[in-house]
This record gives sequence, structure tokens and C-alpha cells, in this order.
Amino acid sequence: MNGDQKPIGVAVLGLGNVGSEVVRIIDESATDLAARIGAPLQLRGIGVRRVSADRGVPVELLTDNIEELVSRDDVDIVVELMGPVEPARKAILTALEQGKSVVTANKALMSVSTGELAQAAEAAHVDLYFEAAVAGAIPVIRPLTQSLAGDTVTRVAGIVNGTTNYILSAMDSTGADYGDALAEASALGYAEADPTADVEGYDAAAKAAILASIAFHTRVTADDVYREGITKVTAADFASARALGCTIKLLAICERLTSDDGHQSVSARVYPALVPLTHPLAAVNGAFNAVVVEAEAAGRLMFYGQGAGGAPTASAVMGDVVMAARNRVQGGRGPRESKYAKLPISPIGDIPTRYYVSMRVADRPGVLAAVATEFGNRSVSIAEVRQEGIDDGGEPRGARLVVVTHKATDAALSETVKALASLDVVQSVDSVIRMEGTSE
Amino acid sequence: MNGDQKPIGVAVLGLGNVGSEVVRIIDESATDLAARIGAPLQLRGIGVRRVSADRGVPVELLTDNIEELVSRDDVDIVVELMGPVEPARKAILTALEQGKSVVTANKALMSVSTGELAQAAEAAHVDLYFEAAVAGAIPVIRPLTQSLAGDTVTRVAGIVNGTTNYILSAMDSTGADYGDALAEASALGYAEADPTADVEGYDAAAKAAILASIAFHTRVTADDVYREGITKVTAADFASARALGCTIKLLAICERLTSDDGHQSVSARVYPALVPLTHPLAAVNGAFNAVVVEAEAAGRLMFYGQGAGGAPTASAVMGDVVMAARNRVQGGRGPRESKYAKLPISPIGDIPTRYYVSMRVADRPGVLAAVATEFGNRSVSIAEVRQEGIDDGGEPRGARLVVVTHKATDAALSETVKALASLDVVQSVDSVIRMEGTSE
Repeated sequence: MNGDQKPIGVAVLGLGNVGSEVVRIIDESATDLAARIGAPLQLRGIGVRRVSADRGVPVELLTDNIEELVSRDDVDIVVELMGPVEPARKAILTALEQGKSVVTANKALMSVSTGELAQAAEAAHVDLYFEAAVAGAIPVIRPLTQSLAGDTVTRVAGIVNGTTNYILSAMDSTGADYGDALAEASALGYAEADPTADVEGYDAAAKAAILASIAFHTRVTADDVYREGITKVTAADFASARALGCTIKLLAICERLTSDDGHQSVSARVYPALVPLTHPLAAVNGAFNAVVVEAEAAGRLMFYGQGAGGAPTASAVMGDVVMAARNRVQGGRGPRESKYAKLPISPIGDIPTRYYVSMRVADRPGVLAAVATEFGNRSVSIAEVRQEGIDDGGEPRGARLVVVTHKATDAALSETVKALASLDVVQSVDSVIRMEGTSE
Repeated sequence: MNGDQKPIGVAVLGLGNVGSEVVRIIDESATDLAARIGAPLQLRGIGVRRVSADRGVPVELLTDNIEELVSRDDVDIVVELMGPVEPARKAILTALEQGKSVVTANKALMSVSTGELAQAAEAAHVDLYFEAAVAGAIPVIRPLTQSLAGDTVTRVAGIVNGTTNYILSAMDSTGADYGDALAEASALGYAEADPTADVEGYDAAAKAAILASIAFHTRVTADDVYREGITKVTAADFASARALGCTIKLLAICERLTSDDGHQSVSARVYPALVPLTHPLAAVNGAFNAVVVEAEAAGRLMFYGQGAGGAPTASAVMGDVVMAARNRVQGGRGPRESKYAKLPISPIGDIPTRYYVSMRVADRPGVLAAVATEFGNRSVSIAEVRQEGIDDGGEPRGARLVVVTHKATDAALSETVKALASLDVVQSVDSVIRMEGTSE
């Protein structure tokens, strides 16, 4: 290993927050990176939408001809940081077909197109790394694919979207409504101009698909992930959650399920959930991410850190770049796609969880009995009931009734909610939120 | 990849808690492991001190001839779980020289003999993995050597010894003295009959040496690690810590230091420290482990989980076994020892930290001035002072004075303590404990 080794050529696609940091690290840490890899990294070019002189890098490195850049003979590793699905997909496929190793942070792409890309990497005998696609700087892909390769993962549950966690943390700590918390997040740069991908859970669902795929050795795409966003969570829900010793978090949950007759399946789902304050994920606030992994032998592990941002994401990207470069120098490849288990995906209707149901009811005798009967009729067992008077000047005066159930399937709960809504004594069912992190 | 591949032969050395779990997983997860590796694992033999029929495994697998077992032609991977340094060292060297890949959980060995073993692995072009040597099931070696390979690690601080964490957690929650907490830990199986390696910090120091070596690309051995155990921590220290908003934890700290003239060095040290209750490590209780890694781009990451025990440690071992086996099947090797940076080790005297000093003083005017003068004379700045009366029936009546300093070097503090002890008004200096996790 020495500096006389033939350099490893790198092309970076995209020069946003992450791309700029990657370019900076390749430059400023050149000596260290060369020592760790056994050959120097050489930045061959940066693909951008429009070439201009004010991008903070030598303009001769810039090109808007992505296809040409990724096909250059002196490029060994392509770092894709353009997002979203296209034109990233095409660029990565071209790179793989040309025998380049690829590092990407593109969760949207990796959650829909993983099979196609994995096959192209396999055919070319090159690496396709994507640690930065999930939870930014926090190592989760490598621990799941390598450190836990000899164990049986049973569950992965995480807070993997910083924007929604920032909004929910603000609602929890200030009592703000969703709209106000979103406005604050936007003003501070924690939410994008169009926050749909974050607040509706699409971003978290993409990450859930990736996590479920590698945790359970089964190909899971974003379409397989059940998804609810946070836009309907109210200040009243947070108040009720607190009274129940909980907070509310948007969780990505990947679970290995075993039926009574021993058949295994996979569930991947994203939704806001009540989480007990004693659960480790309850304390993950603001723009931080955390992933809890449960495995048969390892027990419960937690990984915590910054889930987004230019520098943290660049750290994960550069870890992959160094590994891909080492493999180029020393021979060998990182782990390939592992999809041998081919477990079926469980529909959300089959998934047993606990539920919190908040409804507005008439404030008169017999209401609780009527409500409880509907739960009982569908074998949904009630764990806790809370009733509070509401005085909003309306007529007739109503009360807020909160019911927390034991574990029930989504199908049974959905039927119960439909029946509740048609009861005379129930004015409205305002919230149905799952509860996670408790065992009963 | 299919089951027709030539099997990968495995020899397991040691059949204690971890070895038994490894053997169980190789057997019970055989199908999954074969699919992940691309070839089946085949257990060729188990090295034990005495062969006997009551070990829960087929007796024909057992042998007390370790050297013969690790040299067998049909063994590809040797899993060393015997500890301590010898005979493990000799067995591993033989295995490496015979071209076997080696997986070990032996922190004592890896912290004294890493260079010798790394060279043997290098010469034979085989893998030497040791994820299980630090923090049991928690992936820390792989994240540091791979995920953070493109970043600059500045600090690793962890609770890496479950026995001492159990004892300190018990002292904190029950107010027990060290002796009682140790006795309870022993009765419950959390402390060994001879707890010296744990309570005197030798185990944590071995892990600190390993962590510092990989984090800073510098060879650090156990002898380079400054070490203090927990045997002198008192119930009074915990009471004072709590009054200061802290708890006390045995920390392993690895730090990259940069001097005023830009020279870098490494500090590796183990001692009990006051940790603010708001710090993530403060909440790590009982037999759990956690490692906080700080890196320039990634920011602060935390890894949390079970740091010991048969099954969790076996999970880490099996992850390494699968990776070593994959490399055998597909070609390639894991990361080699990286020691290019060759940073010097800073002596403890140069390390600036904050200090908590507890002393018994005469209860009369002028005491604080005299004490404060000694701190000031050595440029040790005082952040906080607390005085409590002590009524233990002794004469003359004394008081307990607790001083918390701003950052000072160990050398300056040591001189101060010496001077304090010789003051007339100071009856005794009872505790000097560092404080970590605060910035001032």
C-alpha cells in the first residue's frame, strides 16, 4: 500500500448539500483516504444540471453530460447524489454496466428499483453500496447486512425521518397544532417547500422497504409498505398521549411474523404511533434519527445519530466510497443483495397492534356501555378508558372518550371504528393511532 | 450460490457460554447461514480443555488437541472463544499460519498482541475479525473500520464493561456502598468470583486499546491506556454527584488531541467519571453497554445494546463467521489492520478534564479561602463549590467540601491535591473523580 498505486477515479453526481461535502472531504482528507484505501482517490468530474462558475469547485470539473461522465475510462466509482428516481436510475445503470462501483444515497430509487440495480451490479461484479440511503450518518445497512449476518433479525423499528420528528417533537414540547409546527419547521429549514414526501410518510416508507429487504433477506419495495403520515395528528392527541405516559412518533416498523402454523411473513409499515416515554425511541427528539434492531441472539440494539444533513450524510457516503475503493485495490466485493428468504408480505389488516381511539361522544349514561359493546363484538379487548368533558359551547354538550385497546388486528379495529361511527351516542371518531413499544 | 458448494469448515475453540451458543446457531440456522454465505458451514470440531460426554454436543466433535484441530485441512475458519491470552494466542497464530481465517472475542489478546496477529493474517492473506471483543452484540468494530472509514473520528467514549456498570447502577439507585453492590452483583452472576479484571478496569482498558487503535489508525495496546477502577467510589460520591445533576459511570475514552501547534496525539483512558444526567451515557444502566462515537462529518453517534452474555456475544461472533465465510466463497478480504497514522500516545498528565474533589475540612471561617488559593496557585479554575456539615460525633467537628473545577490538566490537579492534603484545614482528600460529558 502506497501512494504510487494507480489512483481510484471518482465521479460525483449532484452538488447539493451532500455532494459539496463529499467533494470537500475527498479534497481535504486526501492523505488519510489514500492511506486507508491503499491508493489515492482522484475526483474526475461532478455531474450537475447546469454548469456554472459559482459552485465553489473548479468549473472544469463540472459537466452536465452525466452519461458521458459515468462512462469515462478513468472513473472507477460513481457517487450518485442527485435524486430522485430519474435520472439517477439511468445514470446508475449505465455506470454499473460500464463496470463502475456505485455508491448512492437515493432511498427513493433503492426502494423501488433495488432488484434491477442489484442484478446489474451482480452482472458486472461490482459494488452497489447505499448506507446513506437510510438514517444519514448512522450505520444501519452495514450492521444489518454484516454484523447481524449470523443472527435472525425479528424487528427493526426506527425514527428515520428528521422533518416529521422535528414537527412531532415541537408539538409535544409546545402543545402546538400540526399546522403551526410545520410552519416553524419550514421557517427553520427542517421542512421543504413541498413537505409531502416527509409528512405523508413516503420518505420513511422508502427507508422501511430498504430496511425490511436487508433485515429479512426478502425483496420489499416501497409499494409493499403500509403508510400513514402525520398530518392528522392533533394537539389533543398529544395531550391524551401524555396522560397515558406516551409521546407520538412517526415510526418505520419492519417485522418478521410467524403464524400459528409456523409460516413466516414480513410486515413493513409507517405510521404515527403512541410510544411509552420509557421506550428508548421516545427520547429521540428534533432532527435526530434512531433505529432499534431486535434479533434472536443479539437482543435489542439501538443506533442513534443525525439522520440527515450534508456532512452526516457525506460521512456515510464516504464510508461506502472507501470500502468500494478498497475492494478495487485489493480485490473482493461487499455483500450482494440477499433475497433468498422470499418471505411473503403481510397485509396491514393482519397485523396485531394496540390502538388508541379518540372520539367525541354524548355526555350521558350508557355511552361507555354502548361503545364497549362494539369493541367486544369484534373481540377487541379494551385496556384503558379515559373520559374528559368538553366545553366548547356547542349543543348538545359532549365528552371526549379515549379508548386504548390490547393487541388487535387492523381488520378488527377498522370494523370496530366503522361501527362506532354509526352509533347514535358517538358524534365523531377523531383519531385512531396505533401504540407501539408495549408488550400487552 | 447453492447448497452444492464445498462446505466451509469451522473449528470452535472453547465451549463456555459463547461457544455453546455459537455451536447452537451453526446447527439451528444452518439453512439460513448457507443461503447467506453461498455454501454450508460445517462444524469440524470443538476444542476443549477436557473431553467429556456431558457437554451437550456430540462427543466425537470434542478434542483437547487444539493445535491439531486448527491445522486440519478441512477447517477454513477458526473461532477462538477460549480466552485469556494463552493458549489462545498460540492457537490463533497456528491457525493463521495454516491459512485459516480467524474470528475471536478475545479482548485481552487483541489488546496486547494485535500487531503480531495482524501480521500473521496479512502474511497468509486471510481475515482476522474481532467484533465480539468489544461491547458484545453491539456493532462497533465494523462501524468504526468501515462505515466511518471516510470520516475523521475525534472521540470514542463508552460504557464497555457490564459488571462495573451493574455495580455503579446499583449504587446509584439504592444508595448502597461499593462492597454491598459488588456482593449483590456476585450473587446474581454479574460479577466473577475474582472480579479484579472488571472492577479495576483492566477489561475496559483492553477494549479502549482496541477502540483507539481502529478509530485513530494507530497501534494502541493495553499498556498505553491509563486506568483507574471503581473500587474507591463511595456512596457519598454518588450523593454529591446527584446534587450536581450527575451520575457516575466507568468510561473508556479514546480521544484524538490536537496541540496548539497542530500536532495530533491519542489519549486512551479508563476511569470512573461524573456524567451529567442529560448525557446519553447516563441512562445506560445495568449490564448494558453503549458506545458514543464523535466524528467530524457524522457528528455524534450512539450504539447501544447488550455488551456481554452468551447469545449476544455469539451474535457478533457469527456475523464475523458469515463475513469470513463469504470471503472464502467469493474471494476478497475484510479490512486489514490500519495503523498508518502512527499518532503518539499522550500521557494522562497532559489530558485536560474537569474534576470533582471531595474533602473533609475543618468547619471554621477561612477554610474556603485557603482551599481556593491552592487551586488558584496552579491555575485550576473552580466552577462550583458545595459544603455540607458532617455530624459523625468526631472531634473536631468537620465539614465535607466538594469542589468542581473547570478543565485542567491531570498534572495541575495532582499537584493541587497534594497541596490540599498538606493544608492544616484539610483533614482528608477523600475522592478525586473526573467529570465528562460537559464542555466547559
